[in-house]
Amino acid sequence: MFEKPLGMRDTFPITYEKIETVRKTGREFLRSRGYDFIQTPSLEYFDTVGKASAIYNASLFKLVDSQGNTLVLRPDMTTPIARVATSKLLKEKIPLRLAYFANVFRAQQTEGGRPAEFGQMGIEVIGDSTVFADAEVIITAITLIQSFGIESFKITIGHAGVLNCILKDYTESDLQANTLRKLLVDRNYVGFEEAVESFHLPKTKSDALLQFIDEATNFVSIEEIEKYVRKNDALEYMQQLIELINVADLSKYVALDFTLSSHMNYYTGMLFEVFAEGSGFALGNGGRYDGLLHHFGSEVGATGFGIRIDRLLEVLPAEEMQDETVAVIFHEQDYLQALTIANRFREEGKRVTLQSKKGLLDEEAFIKQFGRVVNVSQEDLV
Amino acid sequence: MFEKPLGMRDTFPITYEKIETVRKTGREFLRSRGYDFIQTPSLEYFDTVGKASAIYNASLFKLVDSQGNTLVLRPDMTTPIARVATSKLLKEKIPLRLAYFANVFRAQQTEGGRPAEFGQMGIEVIGDSTVFADAEVIITAITLIQSFGIESFKITIGHAGVLNCILKDYTESDLQANTLRKLLVDRNYVGFEEAVESFHLPKTKSDALLQFIDEATNFVSIEEIEKYVRKNDALEYMQQLIELINVADLSKYVALDFTLSSHMNYYTGMLFEVFAEGSGFALGNGGRYDGLLHHFGSEVGATGFGIRIDRLLEVLPAEEMQDETVAVIFHEQDYLQALTIANRFREEGKRVTLQSKKGLLDEEAFIKQFGRVVNVSQEDLV
Repeated sequence: MFEKPLGMRDTFPITYEKIETVRKTGREFLRSRGYDFIQTPSLEYFDTVGKASAIYNASLFKLVDSQGNTLVLRPDMTTPIARVATSKLLKEKIPLRLAYFANVFRAQQTEGGRPAEFGQMGIEVIGDSTVFADAEVIITAITLIQSFGIESFKITIGHAGVLNCILKDYTESDLQANTLRKLLVDRNYVGFEEAVESFHLPKTKSDALLQFIDEATNFVSIEEIEKYVRKNDALEYMQQLIELINVADLSKYVALDFTLSSHMNYYTGMLFEVFAEGSGFALGNGGRYDGLLHHFGSEVGATGFGIRIDRLLEVLPAEEMQDETVAVIFHEQDYLQALTIANRFREEGKRVTLQSKKGLLDEEAFIKQFGRVVNVSQEDLV
Repeated sequence: MFEKPLGMRDTFPITYEKIETVRKTGREFLRSRGYDFIQTPSLEYFDTVGKASAIYNASLFKLVDSQGNTLVLRPDMTTPIARVATSKLLKEKIPLRLAYFANVFRAQQTEGGRPAEFGQMGIEVIGDSTVFADAEVIITAITLIQSFGIESFKITIGHAGVLNCILKDYTESDLQANTLRKLLVDRNYVGFEEAVESFHLPKTKSDALLQFIDEATNFVSIEEIEKYVRKNDALEYMQQLIELINVADLSKYVALDFTLSSHMNYYTGMLFEVFAEGSGFALGNGGRYDGLLHHFGSEVGATGFGIRIDRLLEVLPAEEMQDETVAVIFHEQDYLQALTIANRFREEGKRVTLQSKKGLLDEEAFIKQFGRVVNVSQEDLV
């Protein structure tokens, strides 16, 4: 009778207030950087947003509306924002800097502890194709995470175009390249090695791929990738990006990982993931997704990131809650006095619970939750 | 391609910030009154929450999960909170004072301008069956609305028990009484009169019903209802409730309406609706719903209210947004200087957008949106 659907959670007051603190800090931070918050509906058309989203089909919550259309609960915010931007906002002044704090939905097949609904906070810069927009996104991600008091974290940056180039160069068909790419999306390095063996590629190619997978998550500079791929615009772009992060004095938070990949082919530029000490899962991710805007009929570029609130809470430094509440407890005949006393405390900025004695089943248990208890009696009149 | 499902809306930055202001004001106000905020999932089991909700079945968004269970998007917050309270929180110290700020969902059959998803803010007092809890709920509703700067509003209070008593006394079957009650739920006074005629009741009864429907929305004191119903506990309760609101010096916001009704039979006590000048729709409503807790297997009483954020925005006094943003615009080679200047503004508490010239398609259009524009040049170095 009291059960909740698979992966659905209640948020109790202590966690709620932690989320509110994150929300407030993050909102103020992102607004101070010129980002405007928007909200999109929880339900979207499958054909418009569901299909275009980077989320696997099996993770979508689908339903059919009274007109027979298939709807989805938004699985991410990037796709709805791309919809809004291309249908309306792009007629205004670009580049747009948009931010969100919203729940997204991912259907779970088993009760494995993964939430089917969770909060995300993020930004999108739409209509700026320069490396400065990508640098801004990464720098904003770093400084946003710092604003929560988190210091032990790392952003790993890759480039979908560079990876695709390498996979193509060292395999003998698009099918092989795609197979390897999919294995990287799932971080299945063992599967990657097995697949490379099974392709029976020329030894120079298979050796290069195996060495790449071994080294590419640990590069310290862009130069190191040059033994796998000829110098090109994408590498130059990455070089510039790293330099801008260096100028902002934030290099220590950044690492390179050229195996980073996405199963959606509209991610064609730089990609990144955020990992914080204390959590095995990515805190968030981002990247350039020009292809998504093209899907919505616009030619402008876009880049952004999102972080997961549930994972952020796990790595947040512990903070004391100082939220003492005064209980003002009264007998029936003393309502006016009790109200007066309660209002006086409230004017002093205190949190006050006003409670009749008559409404209490167990007064002793009730008052235990308060830092201070005032029992109103006729004497208080004086 | 860019359409949204029926009744679904995007919230653009200006409205978003208005909602945030309401959210902040309301949260601080309710927390200062001792209410703890909680959140429940967007999806619930139909059998648990969907069936128990006061919302008509046709307004529910339903879907089937991977296990074959029917889920609903929460149509209200009262039912999920009743679920949480009875399954978990009631083991703690009651009465509970819970608050929420959440979106709820109501499927629309036609595009009639009604939103299918909208925000609600409200409270629930669970485990206190006294009139003081009901008075607290009404007083909190009044003072919450005042906290938003709204002064022209009215709360109309009725009592489901009193109404049921009258309908039973002046009809000749439960069927007749229920027919009339349903017409009142829909505020169909013409239908009510027609139904009374069609029943062919004794003239004293039909006259009483017609007079009741004519007068009962305009009573100024509880005594006036006594010509329709013998003095009973419910009337005495209402008398006390009105007195407590009077003690709190808030009577001027209150009116009586004994035709107020709900189609859910778990509303057995006082009921109320909030109407503000400038909107034809109820801003919110509330009441005592002991029956809902009983449905979840608990014997404790509960009372609460919720207001709709979309309707609140319509009647909110106009406020100036002072949110000037500085645009710092730079040439490629001046990134470091631009960053330094932007950070200096940010330290002064200013909102700053940092933008490369290279990323601008139409600089003139872009800068129009800013209160101040700083073009970084080498001279700024000095």
